[in-house]
Amino acid sequence: MSARDGEEALGVDPAAEAFAGVAAIGRIRSAWRPGDCPRNLREARAHGGGAARLEIDAPYRPGLRGIAAGQWIWLLAWYGDKRRDLIVQAPAHADGPRGTFALRSPVRPNPVTLQLVRVTALDEDSGHVAIDATDAFDGTPLLDVKPWIDTVDQPPTA
Amino acid sequence: MSARDGEEALGVDPAAEAFAGVAAIGRIRSAWRPGDCPRNLREARAHGGGAARLEIDAPYRPGLRGIAAGQWIWLLAWYGDKRRDLIVQAPAHADGPRGTFALRSPVRPNPVTLQLVRVTALDEDSGHVAIDATDAFDGTPLLDVKPWIDTVDQPPTA
Repeated sequence: MSARDGEEALGVDPAAEAFAGVAAIGRIRSAWRPGDCPRNLREARAHGGGAARLEIDAPYRPGLRGIAAGQWIWLLAWYGDKRRDLIVQAPAHADGPRGTFALRSPVRPNPVTLQLVRVTALDEDSGHVAIDATDAFDGTPLLDVKPWIDTVDQPPTA
Repeated sequence: MSARDGEEALGVDPAAEAFAGVAAIGRIRSAWRPGDCPRNLREARAHGGGAARLEIDAPYRPGLRGIAAGQWIWLLAWYGDKRRDLIVQAPAHADGPRGTFALRSPVRPNPVTLQLVRVTALDEDSGHVAIDATDAFDGTPLLDVKPWIDTVDQPPTA
């Protein structure tokens, strides 16, 4: 695959170096399609959020117990349609090439993305969780949901 | 494996349902040992941080370019020494059983943990990144580093 000026590839494929596997606990549903997604959550919210919701698979639904509407949660999702071997990238919005770990690009060795979203409605029986927004395209595999915790999830000086 | 009162297991092993694999980009080094770790970052900071640092493997080191000392970063790490099939848990500190997705316990279907830490020193050549604290035991596989971004990583009302 070709790289833009200043970009660097690993020379190894992280997928071939895997030491453990991830399972889908469900999927993110949205109005977005591959190749036509907002760039981040701020842009997604500016476009109405994308009718975002989670569909949690049956065995995993009891895991929602204790989450309440109104709460902020982290979503960890797998953006696995991208290459994983780009370690320096030159995104169109940046002023030059930057290391992948200095960027939130979904192009990364382990394409696990992080999104902070607000629960607007939740039903354990159906596994449906309505959220305020997502930048994920419809059907994106969901790996994890975690509560946002104010004492550890923000810089003490924020 | 036995479960405490009120705990529920999945009946399936998420490891056996994996659809993709994760690679280690390096390791978290610390003063903590398995079974003798602080419960979270707040507790880790109260105990001096744990001499925490990252060792990034050689191919991944250019990915650090653009990260600066003083910056807050997310660490995604693999706490893979725990069971993955507990979907309702009764932690000692909670007032009753709760869904795994309402908890930050490392016992979860995909044991990817999330830690917000401050970079105190960084050297791309050696791949050494000193951080202010970790609750991970020495040698924990590191999956990803991401910059903390104020416009998307905190609730708008915080």
